[in-house]
Amino acid sequence: MNYQKIITEIYKSVEAEEDQGQVSSYIPELAQVDSKYFGVYLTTTNHTEFGIGSCYQKFSIQSLAKVLSLSLAYKMLGEKIWERLGVEPSGTPFNSLVQLETDKGIPRNPFINAGALVISDILISELKKPLTDFLKFVRETSNNSELNYSERIAASEKSAGFRNIALCNFIKSFGNIKNHPDEVLDFYFHLCSIEMTCEELSKTYLYLANGGHRISDKHQVLNASQTKRVNAIMQTCGFYDESGEFSFKVGLPGKSGIGGGIIAIHPGKFSIAVWSPRLNEKGNSCKGMKFLEQLTTKTKSSIF
Amino acid sequence: MNYQKIITEIYKSVEAEEDQGQVSSYIPELAQVDSKYFGVYLTTTNHTEFGIGSCYQKFSIQSLAKVLSLSLAYKMLGEKIWERLGVEPSGTPFNSLVQLETDKGIPRNPFINAGALVISDILISELKKPLTDFLKFVRETSNNSELNYSERIAASEKSAGFRNIALCNFIKSFGNIKNHPDEVLDFYFHLCSIEMTCEELSKTYLYLANGGHRISDKHQVLNASQTKRVNAIMQTCGFYDESGEFSFKVGLPGKSGIGGGIIAIHPGKFSIAVWSPRLNEKGNSCKGMKFLEQLTTKTKSSIF
Amino acid sequence: MNYQKIITEIYKSVEAEEDQGQVSSYIPELAQVDSKYFGVYLTTTNHTEFGIGSCYQKFSIQSLAKVLSLSLAYKMLGEKIWERLGVEPSGTPFNSLVQLETDKGIPRNPFINAGALVISDILISELKKPLTDFLKFVRETSNNSELNYSERIAASEKSAGFRNIALCNFIKSFGNIKNHPDEVLDFYFHLCSIEMTCEELSKTYLYLANGGHRISDKHQVLNASQTKRVNAIMQTCGFYDESGEFSFKVGLPGKSGIGGGIIAIHPGKFSIAVWSPRLNEKGNSCKGMKFLEQLTTKTKSSIF
Amino acid sequence: MNYQKIITEIYKSVEAEEDQGQVSSYIPELAQVDSKYFGVYLTTTNHTEFGIGSCYQKFSIQSLAKVLSLSLAYKMLGEKIWERLGVEPSGTPFNSLVQLETDKGIPRNPFINAGALVISDILISELKKPLTDFLKFVRETSNNSELNYSERIAASEKSAGFRNIALCNFIKSFGNIKNHPDEVLDFYFHLCSIEMTCEELSKTYLYLANGGHRISDKHQVLNASQTKRVNAIMQTCGFYDESGEFSFKVGLPGKSGIGGGIIAIHPGKFSIAVWSPRLNEKGNSCKGMKFLEQLTTKTKSSIF
Repeated sequence: MNYQKIITEIYKSVEAEEDQGQVSSYIPELAQVDSKYFGVYLTTTNHTEFGIGSCYQKFSIQSLAKVLSLSLAYKMLGEKIWERLGVEPSGTPFNSLVQLETDKGIPRNPFINAGALVISDILISELKKPLTDFLKFVRETSNNSELNYSERIAASEKSAGFRNIALCNFIKSFGNIKNHPDEVLDFYFHLCSIEMTCEELSKTYLYLANGGHRISDKHQVLNASQTKRVNAIMQTCGFYDESGEFSFKVGLPGKSGIGGGIIAIHPGKFSIAVWSPRLNEKGNSCKGMKFLEQLTTKTKSSIF
Repeated sequence: MNYQKIITEIYKSVEAEEDQGQVSSYIPELAQVDSKYFGVYLTTTNHTEFGIGSCYQKFSIQSLAKVLSLSLAYKMLGEKIWERLGVEPSGTPFNSLVQLETDKGIPRNPFINAGALVISDILISELKKPLTDFLKFVRETSNNSELNYSERIAASEKSAGFRNIALCNFIKSFGNIKNHPDEVLDFYFHLCSIEMTCEELSKTYLYLANGGHRISDKHQVLNASQTKRVNAIMQTCGFYDESGEFSFKVGLPGKSGIGGGIIAIHPGKFSIAVWSPRLNEKGNSCKGMKFLEQLTTKTKSSIF
Repeated sequence: MNYQKIITEIYKSVEAEEDQGQVSSYIPELAQVDSKYFGVYLTTTNHTEFGIGSCYQKFSIQSLAKVLSLSLAYKMLGEKIWERLGVEPSGTPFNSLVQLETDKGIPRNPFINAGALVISDILISELKKPLTDFLKFVRETSNNSELNYSERIAASEKSAGFRNIALCNFIKSFGNIKNHPDEVLDFYFHLCSIEMTCEELSKTYLYLANGGHRISDKHQVLNASQTKRVNAIMQTCGFYDESGEFSFKVGLPGKSGIGGGIIAIHPGKFSIAVWSPRLNEKGNSCKGMKFLEQLTTKTKSSIF
Repeated sequence: MNYQKIITEIYKSVEAEEDQGQVSSYIPELAQVDSKYFGVYLTTTNHTEFGIGSCYQKFSIQSLAKVLSLSLAYKMLGEKIWERLGVEPSGTPFNSLVQLETDKGIPRNPFINAGALVISDILISELKKPLTDFLKFVRETSNNSELNYSERIAASEKSAGFRNIALCNFIKSFGNIKNHPDEVLDFYFHLCSIEMTCEELSKTYLYLANGGHRISDKHQVLNASQTKRVNAIMQTCGFYDESGEFSFKVGLPGKSGIGGGIIAIHPGKFSIAVWSPRLNEKGNSCKGMKFLEQLTTKTKSSIF
């Protein structure tokens, strides 16, 4: 398939549309990002790759990092992690506390903030030097030793992250956070602060399209079963309370971040990263959603 | 792939396990079904088929019918139906009323009872002779003129269906049911009462694995886009608040019914029906879930 | 205290204010009531009485009847009734279904619709001729053999009462309605349809200010303990999710109805009925609330 | 009325009953309190007073302090405080976060933890030296310069108060906490840590039974209207989701604390403090509830 031609066409069409949505104002640092950025990068499992627009511009990956932290925890502990969180879509916004009260501190899934905090807690318990070791894992997975946290973004989130502080202490009150909430939050804010370009994202997450193997050299990130399961969770839970809509319109497992990035996976075929900072009401990139909807429609490449 | 061998092996293994779960006691008539039944039937898009166990025994398809009623409404009205219900997983049990109150009578998706009632209301408005015309659609889709409602089951459900009566009147109070609730409920109880064997189910739902076409003669049930979208909704919403778990473990779009039936679709490949009446706490067939989990694990045939 | 003077002053002051709120459109028949009506009637335990405005005009007492049905059930069964419902404020609107799901069909209190339906179910089980016997109780309590149901209002409510039909069937699905929902609803719609004037209301409910005794002839409606408890429930639950506000501003036990009537009790002193059909967002009479707030402020007669 | 005789009788009767409930284990320091303590102290507006049992033993007043912090904020700012919180019963447990999400950070009332945190935030903004000035107010109200915070209890609560940390940050995320959450929590933990005896409590809170005036010397704590309103809020909201039950059984405005203390007010007549550390499921003192129920039953002294 001539991805280059199709991507270019759709890119131009979506770029020409009127801007909608708002750049996230949640974190002071994110609010300053130029809303005009729009980048796309696709990498296939058979070594094709193509990028367009702002695809070499770094941005804050935010919640996209939840896929990487889940992968590392899952790799280290296996199915045991599901004793502490579920795999069900929540039907509620990303930062909701309501279900936690009913569910006694067990988050519905690893991609809402509550679940990502529990995964962070697990990694802190398991890793010797949590921040260093997690970054090492990300660099290995991406085969890119340049990737790093943004201390500036992490600090900015810390100063404004009252909802996440609430979530973490709430889960702690149920006993499902083992370390000190401040430590867990510091780890969580750091992993959200990692910066990547669309190209880097597309290549980093390609293992999920490639049976768990890093494309470059067969390095195994996750085994086949774990890979399928991470994809399944992205399918049902990757877009908060818009997960059904994304599944319905795009039909690929994916994950969004409030930095405006989206990563989508076609198992066996490709991984694609899209970035545009303006978000819709549900916290997902407007142009990113549109681009991917048109892509799978025109290429008939959804998994359904 | 030698499905016959794999299915036989898994069937024997699951059959040998100790019985778990309970036959649904919700409807008097369903409570009388022999809990020992266990049947499987697979039909592939390239004309292979294979059945084992109680696969030629009729049973009440119950909520599996929601896929057929959605298909007919979607075929007739297109995307317009989504003005009256959503495509998001609910995160709540199949008969919950809580979200309806928050969402002002707009059901989260067509596979929870609330959504199926709205779809029933749409069909009553659109069809000249609702029960007759819907049955005609089911018979055409399945290419089987013998299929029918069970008046006995429909009457039994009517006598015990207080929760559904509550749901329908609740939605009516928000204005999202246009016809009289009694009429909508009668239609809904009838469509749930349809009886099929695993073989019949597998063949009827094959259009979802076949780009929307009935396998026998290319008769088009849904167009390609609609087919993908129905599959996507089954993926995220087909198993109530266990949809994530099914996606995680089985990795196929599917739908369950409290009669103990499950239908699962591998787009482009096959449709498979499993039936065993004992249900887990979430209302899904215990053996059915286990069988399908082992099937996609052993055949590595999930969509992820 | 010169109630006549104070009531007249406040009446004129409140009457002069601009109209706010809306006449209830829930039931077709209620929507036709002239919004200009405004009546007040006070009866004291030492035989003073005084009325002003539309105080001799009949209107639909609606939820005010819930105090009478509770009184009769409580009189007949004693504390046993609390096995089937609670005495806690709900914190939710009058017709909410949410808590019932959490609480497994046990209504929070007898003054939300759910609770009044359970009380209706109890009375149907206990009374030989439910509608006849209940009306007899009301007539005895009021010492007024002219009081009656309005078949017109009852029929109107039946035609539009989808939310109540939902509530009743929902509770039935949990097993906390023993009779057929249709029978319970018919009884409930009838008792809401009773028509009284402010004068009749004030005299009927005086037993709650008089230790449980009818004022005219010492006939005992409830014993002293039951009387205190009914007043206590009115205090905490009589105005749905505005009960705290009424307690805060008016400081008397009371009950409102969507016909625009309010009854308030000063234990040991008086019972007062106010009627004005325009309701605020919570479903309570705007002018009625204002009048009573000014009355207890000026007379310093709250129970606190 | 011979309170001494009645109180002595009821005290002995309740003391003889088998112990029920559990000492709060929420805060390490509270868990160590001897569960055998049981004290009662009553002070009337006409200068009668009587105590029995452990009525001169200091204990942690915990949430009883919420009445004092509300009083000071109300005294300083008047009705303006209701812009930031409500006066409605919540229908949920004392530390619930659920309603805050629906209500966008506006607590239902000042006696659930969320509301008390907002009141703390108000006081921090209004007082020059918050902890010093608040203590001064408490000492003045009680006419007792010996009262003090317990730094030990405050520190213990801080170390275990994850749920309150969550609540405070959650409200902050909605913008309804103006100061830094850590500062608000420190203030809140301190005011909960104040220690008093039943005698001291009974005398301190007597202003609520005395039209807002300190009994000893007519010093005005609150004006008459504010006093009535604080009593009204205690009536509907003083016992979390057992407020209706307390109103129903005891029939007095009151407030409980997880230290096992209860204060109850009979406007115009008396203030009574009861203390017994074992709590029921709702977090209210078992023996305290029983004692007060029998007291108002035997003396027929409820406000209803």
